[in-house]
Amino acid sequence: MNVTIAVDCMGGDHGPSVTVPAVCEYLKRSARTQIVLVGRPEAIEPLLSAAPPDVRGRVRLQAASEVVGMDEPPANAMRNKKDSSMRVAINLVKSGDAQAAVSAGNTGALMAISRFVLKTLPGVDRPAIASILPSMRGCTYVLDLGANVDCTAEHLLQFGIMGASLVAAVEHIDRPTVGLLNIGEEDIKGNEVAKRAAELLRSSGLNFFGNVEGNDIFKGTTNVVVCDGFVGNVALKASEGLAQMMGTFLREEFQRSLLTKAMALLAAPVLKRFKGRVDHRRYNGAALVGLRGVVVKSHGSADAYAFEQAIARAAEAAGNRLLERITERMGAREEAV
Amino acid sequence: MNVTIAVDCMGGDHGPSVTVPAVCEYLKRSARTQIVLVGRPEAIEPLLSAAPPDVRGRVRLQAASEVVGMDEPPANAMRNKKDSSMRVAINLVKSGDAQAAVSAGNTGALMAISRFVLKTLPGVDRPAIASILPSMRGCTYVLDLGANVDCTAEHLLQFGIMGASLVAAVEHIDRPTVGLLNIGEEDIKGNEVAKRAAELLRSSGLNFFGNVEGNDIFKGTTNVVVCDGFVGNVALKASEGLAQMMGTFLREEFQRSLLTKAMALLAAPVLKRFKGRVDHRRYNGAALVGLRGVVVKSHGSADAYAFEQAIARAAEAAGNRLLERITERMGAREEAV
Repeated sequence: MNVTIAVDCMGGDHGPSVTVPAVCEYLKRSARTQIVLVGRPEAIEPLLSAAPPDVRGRVRLQAASEVVGMDEPPANAMRNKKDSSMRVAINLVKSGDAQAAVSAGNTGALMAISRFVLKTLPGVDRPAIASILPSMRGCTYVLDLGANVDCTAEHLLQFGIMGASLVAAVEHIDRPTVGLLNIGEEDIKGNEVAKRAAELLRSSGLNFFGNVEGNDIFKGTTNVVVCDGFVGNVALKASEGLAQMMGTFLREEFQRSLLTKAMALLAAPVLKRFKGRVDHRRYNGAALVGLRGVVVKSHGSADAYAFEQAIARAAEAAGNRLLERITERMGAREEAV
Repeated sequence: MNVTIAVDCMGGDHGPSVTVPAVCEYLKRSARTQIVLVGRPEAIEPLLSAAPPDVRGRVRLQAASEVVGMDEPPANAMRNKKDSSMRVAINLVKSGDAQAAVSAGNTGALMAISRFVLKTLPGVDRPAIASILPSMRGCTYVLDLGANVDCTAEHLLQFGIMGASLVAAVEHIDRPTVGLLNIGEEDIKGNEVAKRAAELLRSSGLNFFGNVEGNDIFKGTTNVVVCDGFVGNVALKASEGLAQMMGTFLREEFQRSLLTKAMALLAAPVLKRFKGRVDHRRYNGAALVGLRGVVVKSHGSADAYAFEQAIARAAEAAGNRLLERITERMGAREEAV
């Protein structure tokens, strides 16, 4: 697939020192991708000097004089920073000069600007943020992860359609399974919205599995898990917190004495493989779905390896017709009504 | 503290084979507790034969002919099983013959029966389930964990009061900190209910920390985390799923070859200490708070060690004036209004 991706080089905690090397690495392994580096040329140029000619030939620089701050209110970024690297990268998607944009910047600003510049796809009420979490069977796409609180059943259905389209495009799975996040107590099977959403999903033509519970995300029961942005955000953050705690405890136990430190050295290859399997960097790159353009959000603290994964996801989504897939499914629905 | 605890011996996946040995172990280390064993005498009696005389002297048997099934609809258990071990145990709390009840049975039925028999404390609209999760600083009490979906701000405030009272009684912390579970995006600071609940908590006289996010549960930012039962249940289950996945991955990596298996043997003491720190059995025993009686729910799959922790929590709560603490705080609130 020949795709051009606009990369907001200034976003994230580390800016060009991470984003530019990540772009170079990605281009080395993907011969048919072009990248537009967006940001301050004086910060980006020097980092390209070591790139091989083949890579240099597939990047071009697009100057943008401003940077959206990581804690800047989205409304402020929208109004006052028309020449920010984030905005210019999204403008390139709007104009068709790029098929996707990637940014490690402020999530709220990225969503607000994307929504304002690109608009939503036909039939989509609200865009959502779809994150990827590791599971016993590979990975699970969970949406929404924080863009929408107080969702209706109709919104949850749309998230299901967008999530299934995303997994089909990025993971090449033909009819991804979709689960609705709910709770399991017999007498209180979820709230009213969840009940109604299950009905809508069941009659949607999606490969709807039914209700799933929090642990199913990591069991990998379904390819897609649909939920309200409030619930999704809490589940994601709680999981991050737990993983961090377990990692810290494991480290502390191996650091306890000279003897345990020696064991850590001996067991290092095993522990490294374990760490690799739960390495959140591999799952970096949350898609903002439902927009007229592919936008991928990298974690702000991403390193070059993690940022490269976000670029790869954007390329897969754009190269495998994500927008067309969503539009087709939404269209099929409208016709059925 | 001299307390009498009614134990539903028949509940849980394993019934008396777990609950009775757990009672005996608990009584060995707690000289001032009495326990009423509730259930089928022919199933319980034989398991007491090995108990030392001191322990035997502090248990008595209360016959109950029926057992609530683990998947039985709560309404059914309520209506048709008036002589279930669960119901009889709760009746003992109601009559004052016991100060607390512990059961590993069906959560929905336990809540329904407790609510019906004991009723709620003055000022409490809805009882809640408070679970304990490990944290970097000890443990965090989270409520509600699934009894209530679609909560109002007032309900969340009441959960805060009940959670703080529980931590004060069980953990002996004078003014426990209380956090409100929310999400962090700048522009969408939670839903309307969370916003209003934060105002109520701020003016409640509780030691209110403010909003916390999912990861704060495991960081141990506050002693108590308050949330809607839907969100809480998802966060708890997601965390269980992740912990299980990480455990499985770690095991798999150590089982990969003869060499890694040898390392697992060498590192066994370290791995064991690590497992001990995240051992969910230590945190077994969720309190049903807001009722006119102390009721503690053990995990259905609990082993004797885990069930013993649930008994210990019930004894602490009953011995340290949980109900009085909640009533006082609720009363102070009513007066302030």
